[in-house]
Amino acid sequence: MAVGLKPPGDLQQIAGIRLASVHSGIKSDAKAKDLVLIEINDDASVASVFTRNRFCAAPVTIARQHLALNPTPRYLLINSGNANAGTGDVGIQHAVASCRAVADATAVSVSEVLPFSTGVIATELPLGCIEKAVPGLLDKLDRDHWLQAAEGIMTTDTLAKAVSAQLQIHNQTVSITGIAKGSGMIKPNMATMLSFIATDAQIETAELESLLGQMVSKSFNSITVDGDTSTNDACVLIATGGNGVPVSCSDNDFVEALQGVFQQLAQSIIRDAEGATKYVEIEVQQAASVSDAREVAYCIAHSPLVKTALFASDPNWGRILAAVGRANIENLDIDGVDLYLGNTCLLKRGLPDPDYREELGQAEMDSEEIRILVKLNQGSDSATIWTSDLSYEYVKINAEYRS
Amino acid sequence: MAVGLKPPGDLQQIAGIRLASVHSGIKSDAKAKDLVLIEINDDASVASVFTRNRFCAAPVTIARQHLALNPTPRYLLINSGNANAGTGDVGIQHAVASCRAVADATAVSVSEVLPFSTGVIATELPLGCIEKAVPGLLDKLDRDHWLQAAEGIMTTDTLAKAVSAQLQIHNQTVSITGIAKGSGMIKPNMATMLSFIATDAQIETAELESLLGQMVSKSFNSITVDGDTSTNDACVLIATGGNGVPVSCSDNDFVEALQGVFQQLAQSIIRDAEGATKYVEIEVQQAASVSDAREVAYCIAHSPLVKTALFASDPNWGRILAAVGRANIENLDIDGVDLYLGNTCLLKRGLPDPDYREELGQAEMDSEEIRILVKLNQGSDSATIWTSDLSYEYVKINAEYRS
Repeated sequence: MAVGLKPPGDLQQIAGIRLASVHSGIKSDAKAKDLVLIEINDDASVASVFTRNRFCAAPVTIARQHLALNPTPRYLLINSGNANAGTGDVGIQHAVASCRAVADATAVSVSEVLPFSTGVIATELPLGCIEKAVPGLLDKLDRDHWLQAAEGIMTTDTLAKAVSAQLQIHNQTVSITGIAKGSGMIKPNMATMLSFIATDAQIETAELESLLGQMVSKSFNSITVDGDTSTNDACVLIATGGNGVPVSCSDNDFVEALQGVFQQLAQSIIRDAEGATKYVEIEVQQAASVSDAREVAYCIAHSPLVKTALFASDPNWGRILAAVGRANIENLDIDGVDLYLGNTCLLKRGLPDPDYREELGQAEMDSEEIRILVKLNQGSDSATIWTSDLSYEYVKINAEYRS
Repeated sequence: MAVGLKPPGDLQQIAGIRLASVHSGIKSDAKAKDLVLIEINDDASVASVFTRNRFCAAPVTIARQHLALNPTPRYLLINSGNANAGTGDVGIQHAVASCRAVADATAVSVSEVLPFSTGVIATELPLGCIEKAVPGLLDKLDRDHWLQAAEGIMTTDTLAKAVSAQLQIHNQTVSITGIAKGSGMIKPNMATMLSFIATDAQIETAELESLLGQMVSKSFNSITVDGDTSTNDACVLIATGGNGVPVSCSDNDFVEALQGVFQQLAQSIIRDAEGATKYVEIEVQQAASVSDAREVAYCIAHSPLVKTALFASDPNWGRILAAVGRANIENLDIDGVDLYLGNTCLLKRGLPDPDYREELGQAEMDSEEIRILVKLNQGSDSATIWTSDLSYEYVKINAEYRS
């Protein structure tokens, strides 16, 4: 099902980070890992972003409270198989209690532990499973367990998602490793996206927060399966300082490498979107602003008519055009719009390209990976987003999961 | 396929309006009507609204130009089977020429004829068919041909859509009759919606325009299949004055009757949405503004997760809640939200209703007609919109039409 997605390659250890992953009993499959612990060294900087959905899950509420008390968490406790969302006060108590289980066993304060959950909603978190599993998790902590952690946060992802990058800064090696789990319309409910990324570079917290905003905007906030925002989405970026190399936002090579890790993880979520048969990149250029470019790109990406045409490998440019035409931006001039499918020009200055032939569009559409480029002729800003198609399988998965 | 949609009942003639409908050869099926002419008396008032999509089709461009020259058209020429969209300069010429064919045969000016098209896009309009059919159309003009006109504008609609209403004003009978064609993801492309509604009441043009805006806002602009706006959408409201009864926006009974006709036509489009297995009403109450209420309602209506749950008759309230939570409105207080499915309360002040049981939600969802009610506890404004579910059939129709 996954479109062009490969198992993770070699993953670099990040000095200062240890990870563990076990089966605690939340998932019914005894072979499936469902609980992950990430230990962070005590002089690390940590930045995080959470779902903007107002109906956020209990662990998101508690993680935010803990961060307000204590901006540098020492442990991230992540369970898969249960989202602890829509669970009311009991859910809040369970989220706190699961943090306490780790805090008690490690002699940190409860607020130094952040909880994350993903899976079934409106079902009580089996707290007993988690409490019982904590000692075993602590025993298993190891710098080399990034892949196991990536596996432990999976829900209906078909493949674990993990990426590493290394680069030289001031003649020293800086490593970045991240894991993510899918927004692939995960069973049984909302598109929860979780990602945890660490580098051994040394970065001030304020700098790290600014970097995270920048990274997320062009990665996890530039992907969409269906426009739904989960109650549990979260992304955490950690700079352990474990290699002693100070880095800032102005270190272009580092920023580029970090962006690469974020984008590869984000793209892997789209490649693994449930029901996806196509991996689609939509770029809007020559916009008056980045937000205009994003508005147009999302209008295309969210159009069910465009998405079903992509599923059918149908070079139906009228649907793309109509999506551009209804984008909520100022002064759109249809006589300025160019439209490309891959390298094939469909529309030049609002009119069908005289050289366009259906076979050319068909060849572009037949590919598993499709690129749509729109030039608005309004300015110099641009945006790229990544999405999937709308298939029978999408409807099947999302219509039938509880039957 | 259509959900609870019945063939039109008795349709009232509207003094001042004559209609005709023929097969001109645009559609390949020789039995299918594809060209409609509506003749309007010369002292009528006419108001119209068109698609907001910037990539509008040639007939929309020409209709707007003609109205600017001449606000009271005498003829509406509507073809189905070809949208004359994405056809460049040739399309514009064809739209003008088709109006000229009517103008020449009736001795009105070209700008007194408005063109409307719906059907396949990016294919040249077969002008010859239209020109040849005009004399026959004129011969067939009759006050009693509303149903034939409704049939003549159909594309993939499974049933003709036409409604009449009558009421007494100042002891005189006022009639309203309207026809529409579907936004049911029409083959082969965008969801073109056309509607033509006439009354024999006498209404000033400025008053009529204001009325049309008001009517459309709570009918055709309150329905959605998938958020796509067609390049060809149009709605025309005619007050012939044929019965000599003057009416204004302050005649509540008339406004209510007119709104009823608009809403029934709009709802019939949703009932006949291709692939629809459910007819869904979404009402948002206690909003701070009507636009807030609409934003929340559309967030629910456009969520593929909600739509697939509706298709599956799955009372999955988490998906509805998540859609509410991501609505772009100010100060949404999740602890104030009530959620109902039909008469069943799911959520009271942000928390699961203690009396809720899955069987109750299931019973509501099993119905073909489903009502979702959200109370925001933020104010006193409300909005209602109508939508359909997302089924296999929807994907099939929209993925396969050209294969």
